[in-house]
Amino acid sequence: MKQKVVLAFSGGLDTSFCVPYLMNEKGLEVHTVIVNTGGFTDDELKRIEQRAKELGAASHTSIDAVEEYYQKGIKYLLFGNVLKNDTYPLSVSSERFFQAMAIVKEVQKIGADFVAHGSTGAGNDQVRFDLVFEVLAPQVKILAPIRELALSRQQEIDYLKEKGFDFSWEKSKYSINQGLWGTSVGGVETLKSSGVVPEEAFPSQVIEQGVKHLTIGFEQGEPVSLDGEKMSPVELIHFLRRTASKFGIGRDVHVGDTIIGTKGRVAFEAPAPLILIKAHHLLEKHILTKQQLYWKGQLSNWYGQLMHEALYLEPVMRNIETFLDDTQQFVTGEVQVELRPYHFAVLGCESVYDLMNPAFGEYGESNKSFSGQDVVGFTKVTANPLKIYYTIHKDND
Amino acid sequence: MKQKVVLAFSGGLDTSFCVPYLMNEKGLEVHTVIVNTGGFTDDELKRIEQRAKELGAASHTSIDAVEEYYQKGIKYLLFGNVLKNDTYPLSVSSERFFQAMAIVKEVQKIGADFVAHGSTGAGNDQVRFDLVFEVLAPQVKILAPIRELALSRQQEIDYLKEKGFDFSWEKSKYSINQGLWGTSVGGVETLKSSGVVPEEAFPSQVIEQGVKHLTIGFEQGEPVSLDGEKMSPVELIHFLRRTASKFGIGRDVHVGDTIIGTKGRVAFEAPAPLILIKAHHLLEKHILTKQQLYWKGQLSNWYGQLMHEALYLEPVMRNIETFLDDTQQFVTGEVQVELRPYHFAVLGCESVYDLMNPAFGEYGESNKSFSGQDVVGFTKVTANPLKIYYTIHKDND
Amino acid sequence: MKQKVVLAFSGGLDTSFCVPYLMNEKGLEVHTVIVNTGGFTDDELKRIEQRAKELGAASHTSIDAVEEYYQKGIKYLLFGNVLKNDTYPLSVSSERFFQAMAIVKEVQKIGADFVAHGSTGAGNDQVRFDLVFEVLAPQVKILAPIRELALSRQQEIDYLKEKGFDFSWEKSKYSINQGLWGTSVGGVETLKSSGVVPEEAFPSQVIEQGVKHLTIGFEQGEPVSLDGEKMSPVELIHFLRRTASKFGIGRDVHVGDTIIGTKGRVAFEAPAPLILIKAHHLLEKHILTKQQLYWKGQLSNWYGQLMHEALYLEPVMRNIETFLDDTQQFVTGEVQVELRPYHFAVLGCESVYDLMNPAFGEYGESNKSFSGQDVVGFTKVTANPLKIYYTIHKDND
Amino acid sequence: MKQKVVLAFSGGLDTSFCVPYLMNEKGLEVHTVIVNTGGFTDDELKRIEQRAKELGAASHTSIDAVEEYYQKGIKYLLFGNVLKNDTYPLSVSSERFFQAMAIVKEVQKIGADFVAHGSTGAGNDQVRFDLVFEVLAPQVKILAPIRELALSRQQEIDYLKEKGFDFSWEKSKYSINQGLWGTSVGGVETLKSSGVVPEEAFPSQVIEQGVKHLTIGFEQGEPVSLDGEKMSPVELIHFLRRTASKFGIGRDVHVGDTIIGTKGRVAFEAPAPLILIKAHHLLEKHILTKQQLYWKGQLSNWYGQLMHEALYLEPVMRNIETFLDDTQQFVTGEVQVELRPYHFAVLGCESVYDLMNPAFGEYGESNKSFSGQDVVGFTKVTANPLKIYYTIHKDND
Repeated sequence: MKQKVVLAFSGGLDTSFCVPYLMNEKGLEVHTVIVNTGGFTDDELKRIEQRAKELGAASHTSIDAVEEYYQKGIKYLLFGNVLKNDTYPLSVSSERFFQAMAIVKEVQKIGADFVAHGSTGAGNDQVRFDLVFEVLAPQVKILAPIRELALSRQQEIDYLKEKGFDFSWEKSKYSINQGLWGTSVGGVETLKSSGVVPEEAFPSQVIEQGVKHLTIGFEQGEPVSLDGEKMSPVELIHFLRRTASKFGIGRDVHVGDTIIGTKGRVAFEAPAPLILIKAHHLLEKHILTKQQLYWKGQLSNWYGQLMHEALYLEPVMRNIETFLDDTQQFVTGEVQVELRPYHFAVLGCESVYDLMNPAFGEYGESNKSFSGQDVVGFTKVTANPLKIYYTIHKDND
Repeated sequence: MKQKVVLAFSGGLDTSFCVPYLMNEKGLEVHTVIVNTGGFTDDELKRIEQRAKELGAASHTSIDAVEEYYQKGIKYLLFGNVLKNDTYPLSVSSERFFQAMAIVKEVQKIGADFVAHGSTGAGNDQVRFDLVFEVLAPQVKILAPIRELALSRQQEIDYLKEKGFDFSWEKSKYSINQGLWGTSVGGVETLKSSGVVPEEAFPSQVIEQGVKHLTIGFEQGEPVSLDGEKMSPVELIHFLRRTASKFGIGRDVHVGDTIIGTKGRVAFEAPAPLILIKAHHLLEKHILTKQQLYWKGQLSNWYGQLMHEALYLEPVMRNIETFLDDTQQFVTGEVQVELRPYHFAVLGCESVYDLMNPAFGEYGESNKSFSGQDVVGFTKVTANPLKIYYTIHKDND
Repeated sequence: MKQKVVLAFSGGLDTSFCVPYLMNEKGLEVHTVIVNTGGFTDDELKRIEQRAKELGAASHTSIDAVEEYYQKGIKYLLFGNVLKNDTYPLSVSSERFFQAMAIVKEVQKIGADFVAHGSTGAGNDQVRFDLVFEVLAPQVKILAPIRELALSRQQEIDYLKEKGFDFSWEKSKYSINQGLWGTSVGGVETLKSSGVVPEEAFPSQVIEQGVKHLTIGFEQGEPVSLDGEKMSPVELIHFLRRTASKFGIGRDVHVGDTIIGTKGRVAFEAPAPLILIKAHHLLEKHILTKQQLYWKGQLSNWYGQLMHEALYLEPVMRNIETFLDDTQQFVTGEVQVELRPYHFAVLGCESVYDLMNPAFGEYGESNKSFSGQDVVGFTKVTANPLKIYYTIHKDND
Repeated sequence: MKQKVVLAFSGGLDTSFCVPYLMNEKGLEVHTVIVNTGGFTDDELKRIEQRAKELGAASHTSIDAVEEYYQKGIKYLLFGNVLKNDTYPLSVSSERFFQAMAIVKEVQKIGADFVAHGSTGAGNDQVRFDLVFEVLAPQVKILAPIRELALSRQQEIDYLKEKGFDFSWEKSKYSINQGLWGTSVGGVETLKSSGVVPEEAFPSQVIEQGVKHLTIGFEQGEPVSLDGEKMSPVELIHFLRRTASKFGIGRDVHVGDTIIGTKGRVAFEAPAPLILIKAHHLLEKHILTKQQLYWKGQLSNWYGQLMHEALYLEPVMRNIETFLDDTQQFVTGEVQVELRPYHFAVLGCESVYDLMNPAFGEYGESNKSFSGQDVVGFTKVTANPLKIYYTIHKDND
């Protein structure tokens, strides 16, 4: 009986090459899997399945991981207002674990002996896939034919043709990755430190010119309504993407340190994540204390970094999620947002838990729970260590 | 001989009231001082001087603290990419220490027995002024008549009229503070959690509709040229403000925790700080290592917080400045910026110290200093603690 | 009808003075309360009650807060291995909140109009008491007669004598505070930066000379057994104190920054906290990952600092407790401890969750989940950013 | 002409095997180097040189790196009070970089084509050596024969005998590493989670029974005198080691996460580092502000971790050193230390920069720069955010 391999399959050239290669050169029964984390339409999924079958896959499975991706990943990125290097919502990196995890489950279901992916040896994704497989499926062997063979596109095309698969493989100038938490666009200009990906490289085009107002409702940190209408968080993210991408909102370039030690640069369009994070953060600024905001920031920054660097499985991630959940208990309210071409602003919010409450004074205008004399005392005591320091150091100068 | 008081004087109602009050009710010789940290024109300074004289000040001094403010304050806020709560460049709070410091020097020069300011008991500034005076001029007594008397505007106007000063005191709806590092606009809407300051409340109006490109040159972290033309950092900040405020760039609302424990909200317009911080940060993302970026972020966040909370004199601030100076040694290069109505983007950069260098591979395309097999080993070792953890915990489940 | 005051009463001179003072000079009905957080014997409590009655207290209540103190305070200090400035287990500061909290409940039960304590104006405790009363009982007024009157000991004694209370008030040279989490000894030598509190100032004397071994069992982070015998955590803490204080273990001097801005110094003896913290920490080093240890350390340090500085009520404390609880899920096992005169050592541990497991290799001897070649790859990739950095900087030198 | 290899040579079995192996099997001219970081006597160095020559080394060089190790490594570990996992002064890990660095210089001097070390594939040291060579000598190839061949001790002995080297190779039960910053003892008991290395495994024996007092003088953070007598820091470290090891002071067990992902355990004896760190830290508690102590702690913890994990070359390490240097400007004074069998205590200190100064009040006794009323105001303002929080949350409950 043949040994089995589960192959993470996207229908692109690299993973298409892998199907006949794993069958013919490795003698394996190939089971292809695609995991949808929000970037594929039903039509696209159907076309991918058809391609897998044509190439000879013994089975093809399409897994919908969107809800799990939101519940176990995106939700915490939002609770944590995570923007890597103050810019990037981890659109791509946050997807990978949930894709790998779904593949591990398929491996276990099928009882496969191997797991394969189409990553090259030059990016982060190979680490993200390998690491999850190493940890959660230590009994299976990992195959990454493109990395191992270091083939050129033409060699892959030639091999496929030789095996009877004469598809057209237009090389797109840009490598695009779409998912629930945003779209990345890499290639040409992003391979250098300056230069901007052209308008037409983005999947969406800017067609709105005016100003649009939205009200986003949050309950315990999760986005649950738009302009008063209840929506699931996933629906709301899709709605915001459709609406705001017409304004060209949420585009930027991420520059960061890759897991493999080089600097990397990638353009992205992520209107929903950026609007939701800024709206959520505004609400928190009104509802949480200074200490809560500080420590949420510290832990979330690290949460994002560990997720980006393939370490979603690190146990501290579960501890941080528990902390974040606990902070969100009262993060309930509505936030007003304004959209304009290329720009959005969070205008204000309302919440019963708002700590900015005129009953306790208006900043700069009145103070109701202490007197000016109390502030004099406060300042004297606060000044005390510095007063001692400067006196001692004057004496010793 | 009369005892002397140095009064921080802005020419507004509160500090105007203080002049006759301190003379008549306290029997002091009043020496007024205004410290310019970038927000006053020569004309305005002249009008303020004239007002001080009319009110009976024994002397009036106008101190230009702009350069010192940049060298000892703004420079480090820029090195640290400091945006409080990810939003606010500390436009107002960063000025106060340099104003208080200049007043202390005046106190010492004049040999004053008292120092006075016009702060009410309801804001942060009273703490910022008092604290510097307590620490650096412990021998003089602090007077804050408005805080002590808790007078209404009308009572102040009546007192002035009674003393023969019948100026017109239009109450502006908004309290505006201008300085080199931005302009704050508070009042009406900012006293509540939602509502937006109207366009006309801002000192500058949006008159540009197109797209404009700029190139900002940095040397060791400091901005030194615009489109190839050398400028001093202070000139460059003024130039950027004039240029970008016509696009309505750099407006936002800061929500934060005040020193006195309430939540506060203020609108601001700070195009130069925001553009410079984002441009500088982009350059650093290319030039500094991940570890350097992380620790700069940690220390700078704290630096901004201590400055905001009146603790510029804390010795750790000098230690942090030393750290920041050290990190800026190679932060030299040019950054491309794009301005649009209400929006700007940093497009890319060039630097001889850029670590994103094709000689070492292109992210996702090629790796030149290690092989795919090396990444396999890297991932195995990186996965090792998690593999142990998950195996142990499976065994024990 | 007379207004009522609840007075925190210890039976010492200061709080004894307060009883007739509050009755006679303030015209209040005085209800005394003592809150036991582990430092008082039944006999002592009885004597204190008698004294309160003699002085004319309308009622006296003795509250046992030991279990609550452990469950809501000490437990988290142990989970967090909290040693302030790497030395001090917060023996005194951690008690104050639970005492103040119990008094607030008494205030509410009695329906008092005032709450009083005997603190002077020169220490941390006044802040700890006032702050809890301000926040949780804003409707009652705080009285602190000793602080307000700034009396000398003799003046207090004279006043008491005048009112007919001619007790003997020997001034002890040292101020001693005992509680479940340790004993502090302040005075004479601790008022200066050098000099050691003499042996006889400590409540316990060193009488053991040999070596003793103990095994402490932990379940989910809590100490639950000694040498295999089950005990409640509170019993175990008492047992360890009795046993180890005979060796003079756990004595040291804490030097720190007081809430009021001066440096303070105090001797302490806290054998149970120190042994338990070191034993618990050792167990964690075997059971938790590096990331978990790091973040526990960060949050716990802050937890201890906020508790020390009277901010137990800060909401972030609850979030941190949730985090700590979550990390303790598997902190179960036994730790071997060795006691000697003045010294103890944690020798080793056993746990089913121990990550140091020979099945995965022995450090320095063998590696079972990767090869030497994998380490070569690991090191190459880890070295990569530095290789790039040093090459770029060589080129530019 | 033969290609050259520089071999890090200790005279032990592993590196002795490497000499004939590299000559005969790899055809290389072998140049041995030993780098002394404080653990070797002149006699030992002579014996090692003799052994190298006997084995056929083309040259042997003995490099004294003690002073450089102190100036560029130990000094900062002391400034930072670095104890990994609150226990271990990095006795071994801090040496490796300075050894590797000296070898790189030898490689460059000799113009070698290869660099070799005797590490196995199961420990941290292979990473520490490889990484420095990768970064600073990318042109030479690294050889690690023991790791590559995975030989047993007997196989190595047999090979040596076959080549005519019939030395006696007693396997010591423990692997001991001595250096200026302490001695590690690994093997037998440390391979498991419990069990204690026996007394006789330590190089020094406990022979003192009484109590001894010492006074250590620091200047700008560096230890410079003992009992008033000037000494160089290196001399003082040696002196403290000789004196305190007779008391059995400074022994403990380090449990930590290895670079390669397993947990590791090692016994050590490091009296000088522990005494100096605790004494230095005490002095800092008196001289530095709370903020300075906090940030020093944060950066130093990281500094130690990066050094431990082979990343001494990371540029942020230089930034942190600059910060640490800056904080030490006033860390000057004398510290009293008491030695007893197995235990030491830091008793107190004296410094002109001591911030604990009776001129500003005595903690708990008197406050001279503010009044009790000021503390009331301080507490009211400090309580304000919590008062708001608890009121809001009561209203909403």
